Amino acid sequence: MWEQQLQNILERVKQGEISLVDAQAEIKRLISHEMDFAEIDAGREVRTGFPEVIFCKTKTDQEILAIAKSMHEHNPCVLLTRAQVSTAELLKKHFPRLEFYPRSGCITLGELPAVAGRVSVVSAGTSDIPISEEAMVTAMVMGAEVKNYWDIGVAGIHRLFAKIAELRASNVVIAVAGMDGALPGVIAGLVSCPVIAVPTSVGYGASFQGLAPLLTMLNACAPGVTVVNIDNGFGAGYAAALITRKIERK
Amino acid sequence: MWEQQLQNILERVKQGEISLVDAQAEIKRLISHEMDFAEIDAGREVRTGFPEVIFCKTKTDQEILAIAKSMHEHNPCVLLTRAQVSTAELLKKHFPRLEFYPRSGCITLGELPAVAGRVSVVSAGTSDIPISEEAMVTAMVMGAEVKNYWDIGVAGIHRLFAKIAELRASNVVIAVAGMDGALPGVIAGLVSCPVIAVPTSVGYGASFQGLAPLLTMLNACAPGVTVVNIDNGFGAGYAAALITRKIERK
Amino acid sequence: MWEQQLQNILERVKQGEISLVDAQAEIKRLISHEMDFAEIDAGREVRTGFPEVIFCKTKTDQEILAIAKSMHEHNPCVLLTRAQVSTAELLKKHFPRLEFYPRSGCITLGELPAVAGRVSVVSAGTSDIPISEEAMVTAMVMGAEVKNYWDIGVAGIHRLFAKIAELRASNVVIAVAGMDGALPGVIAGLVSCPVIAVPTSVGYGASFQGLAPLLTMLNACAPGVTVVNIDNGFGAGYAAALITRKIERK
Amino acid sequence: MWEQQLQNILERVKQGEISLVDAQAEIKRLISHEMDFAEIDAGREVRTGFPEVIFCKTKTDQEILAIAKSMHEHNPCVLLTRAQVSTAELLKKHFPRLEFYPRSGCITLGELPAVAGRVSVVSAGTSDIPISEEAMVTAMVMGAEVKNYWDIGVAGIHRLFAKIAELRASNVVIAVAGMDGALPGVIAGLVSCPVIAVPTSVGYGASFQGLAPLLTMLNACAPGVTVVNIDNGFGAGYAAALITRKIERK
Amino acid sequence: MWEQQLQNILERVKQGEISLVDAQAEIKRLISHEMDFAEIDAGREVRTGFPEVIFCKTKTDQEILAIAKSMHEHNPCVLLTRAQVSTAELLKKHFPRLEFYPRSGCITLGELPAVAGRVSVVSAGTSDIPISEEAMVTAMVMGAEVKNYWDIGVAGIHRLFAKIAELRASNVVIAVAGMDGALPGVIAGLVSCPVIAVPTSVGYGASFQGLAPLLTMLNACAPGVTVVNIDNGFGAGYAAALITRKIERK
Amino acid sequence: MWEQQLQNILERVKQGEISLVDAQAEIKRLISHEMDFAEIDAGREVRTGFPEVIFCKTKTDQEILAIAKSMHEHNPCVLLTRAQVSTAELLKKHFPRLEFYPRSGCITLGELPAVAGRVSVVSAGTSDIPISEEAMVTAMVMGAEVKNYWDIGVAGIHRLFAKIAELRASNVVIAVAGMDGALPGVIAGLVSCPVIAVPTSVGYGASFQGLAPLLTMLNACAPGVTVVNIDNGFGAGYAAALITRKIERK
Amino acid sequence: MWEQQLQNILERVKQGEISLVDAQAEIKRLISHEMDFAEIDAGREVRTGFPEVIFCKTKTDQEILAIAKSMHEHNPCVLLTRAQVSTAELLKKHFPRLEFYPRSGCITLGELPAVAGRVSVVSAGTSDIPISEEAMVTAMVMGAEVKNYWDIGVAGIHRLFAKIAELRASNVVIAVAGMDGALPGVIAGLVSCPVIAVPTSVGYGASFQGLAPLLTMLNACAPGVTVVNIDNGFGAGYAAALITRKIERK
Amino acid sequence: MWEQQLQNILERVKQGEISLVDAQAEIKRLISHEMDFAEIDAGREVRTGFPEVIFCKTKTDQEILAIAKSMHEHNPCVLLTRAQVSTAELLKKHFPRLEFYPRSGCITLGELPAVAGRVSVVSAGTSDIPISEEAMVTAMVMGAEVKNYWDIGVAGIHRLFAKIAELRASNVVIAVAGMDGALPGVIAGLVSCPVIAVPTSVGYGASFQGLAPLLTMLNACAPGVTVVNIDNGFGAGYAAALITRKIERK
Repeated sequence: MWEQQLQNILERVKQGEISLVDAQAEIKRLISHEMDFAEIDAGREVRTGFPEVIFCKTKTDQEILAIAKSMHEHNPCVLLTRAQVSTAELLKKHFPRLEFYPRSGCITLGELPAVAGRVSVVSAGTSDIPISEEAMVTAMVMGAEVKNYWDIGVAGIHRLFAKIAELRASNVVIAVAGMDGALPGVIAGLVSCPVIAVPTSVGYGASFQGLAPLLTMLNACAPGVTVVNIDNGFGAGYAAALITRKIERK
Repeated sequence: MWEQQLQNILERVKQGEISLVDAQAEIKRLISHEMDFAEIDAGREVRTGFPEVIFCKTKTDQEILAIAKSMHEHNPCVLLTRAQVSTAELLKKHFPRLEFYPRSGCITLGELPAVAGRVSVVSAGTSDIPISEEAMVTAMVMGAEVKNYWDIGVAGIHRLFAKIAELRASNVVIAVAGMDGALPGVIAGLVSCPVIAVPTSVGYGASFQGLAPLLTMLNACAPGVTVVNIDNGFGAGYAAALITRKIERK
Repeated sequence: MWEQQLQNILERVKQGEISLVDAQAEIKRLISHEMDFAEIDAGREVRTGFPEVIFCKTKTDQEILAIAKSMHEHNPCVLLTRAQVSTAELLKKHFPRLEFYPRSGCITLGELPAVAGRVSVVSAGTSDIPISEEAMVTAMVMGAEVKNYWDIGVAGIHRLFAKIAELRASNVVIAVAGMDGALPGVIAGLVSCPVIAVPTSVGYGASFQGLAPLLTMLNACAPGVTVVNIDNGFGAGYAAALITRKIERK
Repeated sequence: MWEQQLQNILERVKQGEISLVDAQAEIKRLISHEMDFAEIDAGREVRTGFPEVIFCKTKTDQEILAIAKSMHEHNPCVLLTRAQVSTAELLKKHFPRLEFYPRSGCITLGELPAVAGRVSVVSAGTSDIPISEEAMVTAMVMGAEVKNYWDIGVAGIHRLFAKIAELRASNVVIAVAGMDGALPGVIAGLVSCPVIAVPTSVGYGASFQGLAPLLTMLNACAPGVTVVNIDNGFGAGYAAALITRKIERK
Repeated sequence: MWEQQLQNILERVKQGEISLVDAQAEIKRLISHEMDFAEIDAGREVRTGFPEVIFCKTKTDQEILAIAKSMHEHNPCVLLTRAQVSTAELLKKHFPRLEFYPRSGCITLGELPAVAGRVSVVSAGTSDIPISEEAMVTAMVMGAEVKNYWDIGVAGIHRLFAKIAELRASNVVIAVAGMDGALPGVIAGLVSCPVIAVPTSVGYGASFQGLAPLLTMLNACAPGVTVVNIDNGFGAGYAAALITRKIERK
Repeated sequence: MWEQQLQNILERVKQGEISLVDAQAEIKRLISHEMDFAEIDAGREVRTGFPEVIFCKTKTDQEILAIAKSMHEHNPCVLLTRAQVSTAELLKKHFPRLEFYPRSGCITLGELPAVAGRVSVVSAGTSDIPISEEAMVTAMVMGAEVKNYWDIGVAGIHRLFAKIAELRASNVVIAVAGMDGALPGVIAGLVSCPVIAVPTSVGYGASFQGLAPLLTMLNACAPGVTVVNIDNGFGAGYAAALITRKIERK
Repeated sequence: MWEQQLQNILERVKQGEISLVDAQAEIKRLISHEMDFAEIDAGREVRTGFPEVIFCKTKTDQEILAIAKSMHEHNPCVLLTRAQVSTAELLKKHFPRLEFYPRSGCITLGELPAVAGRVSVVSAGTSDIPISEEAMVTAMVMGAEVKNYWDIGVAGIHRLFAKIAELRASNVVIAVAGMDGALPGVIAGLVSCPVIAVPTSVGYGASFQGLAPLLTMLNACAPGVTVVNIDNGFGAGYAAALITRKIERK
Repeated sequence: MWEQQLQNILERVKQGEISLVDAQAEIKRLISHEMDFAEIDAGREVRTGFPEVIFCKTKTDQEILAIAKSMHEHNPCVLLTRAQVSTAELLKKHFPRLEFYPRSGCITLGELPAVAGRVSVVSAGTSDIPISEEAMVTAMVMGAEVKNYWDIGVAGIHRLFAKIAELRASNVVIAVAGMDGALPGVIAGLVSCPVIAVPTSVGYGASFQGLAPLLTMLNACAPGVTVVNIDNGFGAGYAAALITRKIERK
């Protein structure tokens, strides 16, 4: 688009419709706009695929409300993470189409997009569910169809085997585990899709707040595993949705 | 397939063509085969998408040669990583279609598959090239079309901006960086495809053999980044190829 | 000055105006004074450029009040850091010219000095503002003119580019960031003034309470970056003010 | 035994056969002997079940030879660990019944004891074989019957399933793994005997010389796993042999 | 048992009492049961020796009650760990045969099994008692006869020597210690049975929440020591009971 | 400069001397140059104050020679760090005005700039001299007047006191220390100029390759200290020169 | 003393006043006392120089009271550490000669011993006073004469110099410091007596709860420094008192 | 002594034998000497009790020779640590009274001082002997009478008990241990003199180059233990000699 604008300026220079000084100023403005444009990725479409979410942990309820209102003007669906019950209750008064997920503290405002592309979220233990749910909601808000498989860790590996066919049918598997963090590596040895591993801070002692499963996952013997930060369900859901959208848009 | 075999056994039981004891034995054998079958994913097709590679570091040249011969019988293209020059020279005598990549120590035997789906490999500094090359070769061997962008780290960020349009056209970006490891996060803020981050052990002092860029990448502010082990170019190339194959096969 | 005093003593010895024993005692006293003098840097002037601040965290309100009163007698402007609201309220009753900065918990008592020399404080995210504000207030109290650029992290790098000309006009840039800590290195690649990097404990999981951005900053690819302790906004503001005062006094 | 000696002294006191001073001295001597006796466990029987082994790494060949000769006088079978080939060659000249295990550097001198009680040694990858072999030889020297299952890590978990019935028939399973260290936890979920886990320093990057598998094993989700030091095949074999001897001697 | 069920189905096929389709369905159901069966190790007996325990820390009282009821239907004795007093009080109303151990937060529901095989639990200091008690109760619930030796750390080593004969008479010794964690290594040098070491997070400063005793125990000079996670009394009791049951069942 | 070039293009458009298509192309080229220009800070002057140096450690002598030649065309003085003696000898044949500093491995090619502004480099022990020298040469190449104070660590603090007046007369003090790293904090308590602290990997045991002095320096009690990476003499010299140039150019 | 008791028993045996069985029992009891005696080093004197103290942190007030009463029967002076105010108030009702030190939470019961031998306790900052006071009280209770020098850290090193003559007159110097932990090394370079260093957890960020000063002190450039655990004022006071008692008893 | 020199100068001033300018210069020189004097503690006597030793590791043989010659002029006995055999051989040609200790690499030049005061050096294993010997030689050179007890670690604790009476007769015990580092804590529970603990880097895996025994020793349950850096035999010997000299000089 900016090429046409440049051509237009030059045309007017040629035609004598614009002074050299003004032409120079317009071209300079165009250039700095161009830089923004370069970032913004063809107008309306969000730059990297999705607007910023609202991370509620360090904000007051009033701040969250203000940001949510502002963001909802431009986005049909807004995601909030790590929200308190009280925040959900306040927002509920302002946004009728609000969904609150109490285990993870996720909130969605507005209509979820139509889903396309399966993402499976597997978690090792019940304590990993909050992080798994965050991954699930994030991927849903970005248009993925999400299926959960909760509490099927390697300590009772037959539980995993019973689901392996379904996992193989996914575009991406998100595997969430604390303690020994062995689940993603075992899954990656059984499926042919990418596995995104989420270590959780669940555990005690030598789990060192999630360091143990993080290292396990980074050292997974089966290739195909990539890893996000400890407890970063959002990041895993986001990356999974990016991948599945690439696949589905093809 | 095994369902038909079970039906067949039962049929023969019904027809009295087989004793109960033999039927029981056959069904048992079927069950344990089934388990293998479940792993093996419909015969010839590799279970998780690609055969094991040969990690040369802990093997003698003669061992490598033997394994390579055995693997090449069943695979048109075999990958070897972390190989010495001497290994490449020995293998060259046995495999005419051998390609050696001296910076990374990768070797490919046989014909590369037809490429489909662009993977971009970006590296921050010249010292990161060995790991970048390993990622590149791995992805190529798995059928990706790979484009390299070497030495465009954030210390001179204009070098990155000059390439951003090309990166945006990729299915996946692999970003390789040591020291501060800032590159993947900056890229993820500018593209809408998944970014696989590879920390390298390049650096000294408080890089702590790659711990610094590993932590940086796990904490990347821009979502969409997933991380593999330090110096694990192979893992990044593998995961990128899994994703791009999913996209292209759609 | 002490040289004259020594000369004077010797003169008096020569003139017989003073006994050897007394001369010896005076010279000894001179020597030990000299040592203090050496520390104290010409009387009134503070030794290293600024009086100690009051770190409120481990003190009671009454203790703080007493110290503040004592320090204010000799200093036109006193700085308190990490203060509670209650402390500010108590002090307000005793010091009419008190300014309280609730996000950082900074308090200034008395008149700020005239400003000279620009220090820019850039922070990556809104959660980094408390530490950024501490840096800002500290530099202001030491006579710097401070300009803030909040929430312009590398995840949306165009926000940084829009401000780069202003940053280039600074004597020093203080760059505050948690999580991946990539901001200072990116800035240092774009400006020709020193960059003081402040890692913050903002983040979770593998940020390890600020270890991740600390390591990132120590490994910044662009030279010109020096680093202070995690969450040490005070230290960054102090060092920046030392530098800018050196520049402005020239 | 010492009770009889005390009774005997008292008897002699009563009979006047011994002076009070001598009785006192004898009782004191008895007491300090008692302390030694308590340590030494009734004469011949080794205190904790097995003589010390010779750890060759920090000793010269001549020192090793001298110690080995001395130890072999009292022990039918002597174990040496981490020995060089040259050491084995030297010893061969002095001990006809010598067995050398070059992968682990173990040497056994003399006749192995009769075996009783099955110990299974499972290793995840071929690089773990040196440590696995050390565990195997140690357990053999202490009288266990050892069966090895090499290269059956979780990346291809069907290899493990094919052996699970045999593992279930063991007294103890030793599971050796580097990188993600997931193997012992998966096994412990499938068997009802104790599992001794040995992390190895095999791997690179975020394996941090074996820290990653060590933490994984300590955090194993399935109970029944206990862990020894990184690369400590000897310790695992020793503990396994202690357990199996307890079982078999019952 | 499942063999009989398979035979029965085939019999009915043969007799024409069941259609092929139904037979197939029944066999499939049997197979997935079979997989469970394969795990469960001879019918009633739990797969790896004992049912899962209820880890109360991350569950509500109502959830715990529901799980406890469900588990108690199939198990004569159920173990709960890390329970609050309030949980114990609630459960008391539903389970008359409940035992609560307030120091460790363990609860046992129902009748303890008959004991066989001595396990000794030794703890270094009074602060280690909660973890020691968890080990004790776990081993008891699994059928071990447990004897405690509390507060006999190495700082006053004569306390340990007074008990050494009793420790030698055990099948397994569990040694629990925080701070320097020296106790298990000293014991292992004096007994001929396996020693399971439990590091505790008791201590301060450079104990780093149990890292110090964990490392000490992994490096124990005396062989025969294996280690569990920090504060993992449950894991130690479980492993000890597995060993002692193997011994007693022989 | 680029403004003139744009004006020139527009002029030619106006005059009809150039087609619109060509004008567009020239302006685009100018823009991408502009982006460079934006970085490069007023034409010839280097972007952030100084050209990149050649870090020799990971390059061959021939590569170094080629880069040095290319860089010397545009820069009167080129800096190489961590060079071998052999590299210096090779370069000597091509660059007559070469200076080699064997302790640090620094090489300067060409004429050093005129000096202005004092930088003091203080090192704690003789083992810190290589890193100190790297700081010194870097600052010199960037135009600072450098004075060295070697081997005046805090173990004999009188050595430091004898030099304190000279240190106070500096624009910046670079303090280099390994082991306890106490030197920079002590100096910062005595001077009123900024202190840049360089931890070195000199030491053993709990110095953990420079971690100990790094942490010491980050926690320096006296404010005014900022820190660079372990062994990063180059970074300290660079930052010090940036500061001193700002001061001297005022 | 026990020698007399043994002699007395033997005497009674000789006189027939006691049966052999009873004599044996008495001697056995004496022996186990003897074992204590063996430890206790010549009768009354405590085994290693001092009775165990009562560490209050993990005990209830009632438990503390009971232990204190029992210990005070045999000891003229009892030490309690890390006590709450409420504990002090309860004990006050039972022990009239109680001294409570609220900053450190130390309590002494009964009469302090006569002092002999000077121990100096130097602390770097006011926040280090609680730990310094614990060291002081511990050394006092063990008979040392303690002199405190509070708040004389290296940031204002002239404060330390003013006291150096007094420090040189001590038997031992205890140096307490958090943050950079530089104080003990500087002192050790100036005195000829042993320096016991106590790192404290005072600080934030990269002090990592006292790790920074711990490492600093272990790496102190000046020899003569030995180190105790983080925040272990008790341990430092104890070791200092052991040394000074050795000196004074000579 | 300097007082006399000052008096002498003043006398000459009074007598007119010296000009005021010269007197001033002499007094200034005296003062800077004075500063040394202040350190040096009464003339000849070394400031902190002993001259600096020569740490050979980072010096050439020629440098070592030069320093040794210079130091031997003023000191009857000079200590060199971590020397190569070649260094010892070179020095032997220049210093007839040279003693070389090959296990530790210590060299003493000249006559050892008369000994007074017993220091016991206890080491856990044979691999700890190099560090133990360094401690021994250091203490000897400083005038202590040293007795060694090698290879009496806690794995066979009866070896320690056999020596306990001798250890109790020492002024100080130095306890050297790698791996679990349990020895010093056990000894401290049995003696009433100070124990200086030296962790060694002997071991592998989770000893983490001496971190494990370092932490163990810092957390020793028995008070009276102070710790030096990993492998710092010199520091332990130095501190022990300081203590014993204090005791013997009393």
